[in-house]
Amino acid sequence: MAKMFYSEARVIYADTDAMGVAYHGNYIKWFEIGRTEYLRQIGYPYFLLEKEGLWLPVTEVACKYRRPALYDDLLSIAAWVDDLGGASIVMGYEIRRGKGGELLATGKSWHGITDHSLKPIRLKKMMPKLHAAVVETLDGAEK
Amino acid sequence: MAKMFYSEARVIYADTDAMGVAYHGNYIKWFEIGRTEYLRQIGYPYFLLEKEGLWLPVTEVACKYRRPALYDDLLSIAAWVDDLGGASIVMGYEIRRGKGGELLATGKSWHGITDHSLKPIRLKKMMPKLHAAVVETLDGAEK
Amino acid sequence: MAKMFYSEARVIYADTDAMGVAYHGNYIKWFEIGRTEYLRQIGYPYFLLEKEGLWLPVTEVACKYRRPALYDDLLSIAAWVDDLGGASIVMGYEIRRGKGGELLATGKSWHGITDHSLKPIRLKKMMPKLHAAVVETLDGAEK
Amino acid sequence: MAKMFYSEARVIYADTDAMGVAYHGNYIKWFEIGRTEYLRQIGYPYFLLEKEGLWLPVTEVACKYRRPALYDDLLSIAAWVDDLGGASIVMGYEIRRGKGGELLATGKSWHGITDHSLKPIRLKKMMPKLHAAVVETLDGAEK
Repeated sequence: MAKMFYSEARVIYADTDAMGVAYHGNYIKWFEIGRTEYLRQIGYPYFLLEKEGLWLPVTEVACKYRRPALYDDLLSIAAWVDDLGGASIVMGYEIRRGKGGELLATGKSWHGITDHSLKPIRLKKMMPKLHAAVVETLDGAEK
Repeated sequence: MAKMFYSEARVIYADTDAMGVAYHGNYIKWFEIGRTEYLRQIGYPYFLLEKEGLWLPVTEVACKYRRPALYDDLLSIAAWVDDLGGASIVMGYEIRRGKGGELLATGKSWHGITDHSLKPIRLKKMMPKLHAAVVETLDGAEK
Repeated sequence: MAKMFYSEARVIYADTDAMGVAYHGNYIKWFEIGRTEYLRQIGYPYFLLEKEGLWLPVTEVACKYRRPALYDDLLSIAAWVDDLGGASIVMGYEIRRGKGGELLATGKSWHGITDHSLKPIRLKKMMPKLHAAVVETLDGAEK
Repeated sequence: MAKMFYSEARVIYADTDAMGVAYHGNYIKWFEIGRTEYLRQIGYPYFLLEKEGLWLPVTEVACKYRRPALYDDLLSIAAWVDDLGGASIVMGYEIRRGKGGELLATGKSWHGITDHSLKPIRLKKMMPKLHAAVVETLDGAEK
């Protein structure tokens, strides 16, 4: 299993909908928070990667909803690298009502690893330190 | 093939992000528009179904991104019923840059068919006219 | 009185909140729609103005809420130029439940008229045709 | 001067727009965070007040933009009670790039104090402890 990295998000009124729960589209935004904090925690904040010319454009996203997040819930977002390809990366997510709490949603996002003209970048060759830091969060076997 | 139903959405500044394109999370919202207009066009606006006690809670959503939607694009959203179960429904979506234009994204959403306490509803038995109207948009074979 | 220009927006689930009404922050987005459609209707779509180097950065916004917009309401957005300065513009807005319907909210937004480095642009001198088109929507007196 | 209460919000990609800065409508959402954390910090979380039958519907909002919030900025939101009426309250806000950092925006929101049928509630009479807690954050003079 890959190592999980944790971040938090508070459900505000803006996030809720008239069914009295968090609008389902907002989980995609919470996945972004999870992904961003993963990168910050391994020492490579995305805003710095961007400045070095890297982009991680989303090519696919999926989310399964188990139970609704409610107003004022403090969500615990777990994010991890599910798969690392040559010029692509898959992130996994779990959102819970508080750390260790009830599982609300699970999901994945698929990303290219590109420059700012969307040309694929071989991460291992071009940014070996970042590549090593990501690999370290995987389950031992370098990919 | 199921019959497609069309609606539109304009990409405004609020929808874009600092990469200069529409934020990927917003496509989930555009799927909602497609789904809502599908129901309106077959004669069963969702706000009326709600008043009759029906809900279609989202249990899963998935989106593949092909090309970015850009500021001020007038998106064409195609929505159709991909699968109709006893107490569940799967919707399919295509988003294009204008009707017949470039394909930007495809997706699906999975929904329960429930009452307001989230108890499953047998659509064919409980709302036979709506069931028939949905079936009519499928590919001939009643389900 | 300045001439009003009309556009529409449908309230979707994503726009609502757990109080069962449209979230108050979304009216700012609907003002953007009104402003954008104003410019399109006078023949100067904002995306084209941007390509010519113009920006209208928001410096201030205000909104008064009278009655709540509800799920599936088809909002009528009226937008007009409230004041045109040398390098600034003030827009006024009214949002109703359908054209001629119940008044839901009124508001204003204040904008600079700048180039892409946020340097003020004298509209009358630099883009006299656009200036004239805007003035024509005011109450007769050129400003 | 009223006592300020501080909270934080991280600018994510979802918050930005194609001008490369935070979309102006999102500040209204950040004001909500400031207001919510004010109430939590004085010991009356809004979700609990709601359960006791209280609502603070927004009747007006205003925001002045000084400098743009940027992607990944950790915003410091200061919130305070600007005025407390019999059945109304005005909140003030300042948003900075980090606590003590550059001033990005200032604003106010006006609220009724009502029950869930939107009938005004005399706060001092009906919820004297909450009233006292709010007054304590004002500048000495009870209102």
